[in-house]
Amino acid sequence: MTIGRMENAKPQSGVDPIERLRRDLHRFTADRNWEQFHTPKNLAIALSVEAGELLEHFQWLTADQSEKLSGNRLMHVRQELADVFLYLLSLSDRLRVDLVAAAFEKIELNAKKYPVELAKGTAKKYTEL
Amino acid sequence: MTIGRMENAKPQSGVDPIERLRRDLHRFTADRNWEQFHTPKNLAIALSVEAGELLEHFQWLTADQSEKLSGNRLMHVRQELADVFLYLLSLSDRLRVDLVAAAFEKIELNAKKYPVELAKGTAKKYTEL
Amino acid sequence: MTIGRMENAKPQSGVDPIERLRRDLHRFTADRNWEQFHTPKNLAIALSVEAGELLEHFQWLTADQSEKLSGNRLMHVRQELADVFLYLLSLSDRLRVDLVAAAFEKIELNAKKYPVELAKGTAKKYTEL
Amino acid sequence: MTIGRMENAKPQSGVDPIERLRRDLHRFTADRNWEQFHTPKNLAIALSVEAGELLEHFQWLTADQSEKLSGNRLMHVRQELADVFLYLLSLSDRLRVDLVAAAFEKIELNAKKYPVELAKGTAKKYTEL
Repeated sequence: MTIGRMENAKPQSGVDPIERLRRDLHRFTADRNWEQFHTPKNLAIALSVEAGELLEHFQWLTADQSEKLSGNRLMHVRQELADVFLYLLSLSDRLRVDLVAAAFEKIELNAKKYPVELAKGTAKKYTEL
Repeated sequence: MTIGRMENAKPQSGVDPIERLRRDLHRFTADRNWEQFHTPKNLAIALSVEAGELLEHFQWLTADQSEKLSGNRLMHVRQELADVFLYLLSLSDRLRVDLVAAAFEKIELNAKKYPVELAKGTAKKYTEL
Repeated sequence: MTIGRMENAKPQSGVDPIERLRRDLHRFTADRNWEQFHTPKNLAIALSVEAGELLEHFQWLTADQSEKLSGNRLMHVRQELADVFLYLLSLSDRLRVDLVAAAFEKIELNAKKYPVELAKGTAKKYTEL
Repeated sequence: MTIGRMENAKPQSGVDPIERLRRDLHRFTADRNWEQFHTPKNLAIALSVEAGELLEHFQWLTADQSEKLSGNRLMHVRQELADVFLYLLSLSDRLRVDLVAAAFEKIELNAKKYPVELAKGTAKKYTEL
């Protein structure tokens, strides 16, 4: 049915996309009986391992080259970004952390640690400003 | 103006929260003139460094201990989760990757790599199933 | 020539093994014209990426399982340990750091940060002792 | 006794320095009853966390800047290199891997994966040569 296909094709406007991702992830994990492996410790490891796989794509590139990835490279990088995101969501979920709320709070905290007048144009750590 | 402040204080229901995060992050970076440091290569490094800081909290914990973090530990872990998320969003943004779309696609891809009947209850890599 | 082969087969007793490793590595890199890629920054990235590949082997294992790796797993882990070591030597070399001297000094420093009477039997960080 | 102290202060010429490091590390760990925390899994995590701390020093530097670290930065980098080395030795020890032998073998393996005539001057992965 056309209407049904349209509903699937576009984001379901009523449901937050992160909430939908969490649900899909939860079902994926439950279907495979993988909760036993997904302790917070193991998920933190997996997240770090995936971040390393993402970084591997950039290791020998110059800064300039990293701005214009080939189509093939970008496709793999995109998948690694997704892997990091999925483990980040799983870990947050397992720890009952609202990732989006935590991110908004962290931006505010960073704004205090890095006041514009001190941090402008410098990459120094806040402890050195 | 009071109305304006109220609109900022509560989530703007009409706008996707990730979209709002992206905008806030963008402004934070632009205000500090930090785009010059935020090459994709450097953002991939920063993401990996933050994932390591997150992992540090779990390194000596048993799997069980990692399920019940102290309130103080959880507060720090929450901030590290946010840091990882913010760099993940910045890097995706810089590479013009739609992170949420990529994540939905990756779940589908993983479902094919790990069919329920083969993957159920085992932590083997798909290459070993 | 037999004598030559025997001399290669056993460690040259007069030369420090780490010194020999450094020389072999140096030649390996120079032969391939790879010094251009081996900036300290890139070597630090490569080291972290390899540490992630090493960690991947342990991510879903219990602590007990990690004590008794299968022969095949151990062979791969051994190669990852070697990769980490080779990048560690290359980076130290490039920065003119005497890695062995630095390690002896770090043990002494750690002994002060973690006095036996405070640190015995606890995994707390020195800042929490 | 003076002679004894002098013998400890300078490198014992008859004993391989890595062997001495392993012994000192072993005693350091045993004195604190830390073997219980030093499962191979936990040591692999710690190694990766330390590699991240090392990398943090380079994250916002250009390739050129990473060649000429300030004295203060270099002092910290040297300590992080030592930390990585100490966990690498501990993990190898726990798994009964001869790290130096593994490294020599890995150089030979890499020489086959990256033949000079194909790999000269390119940073491509061996699977792409």
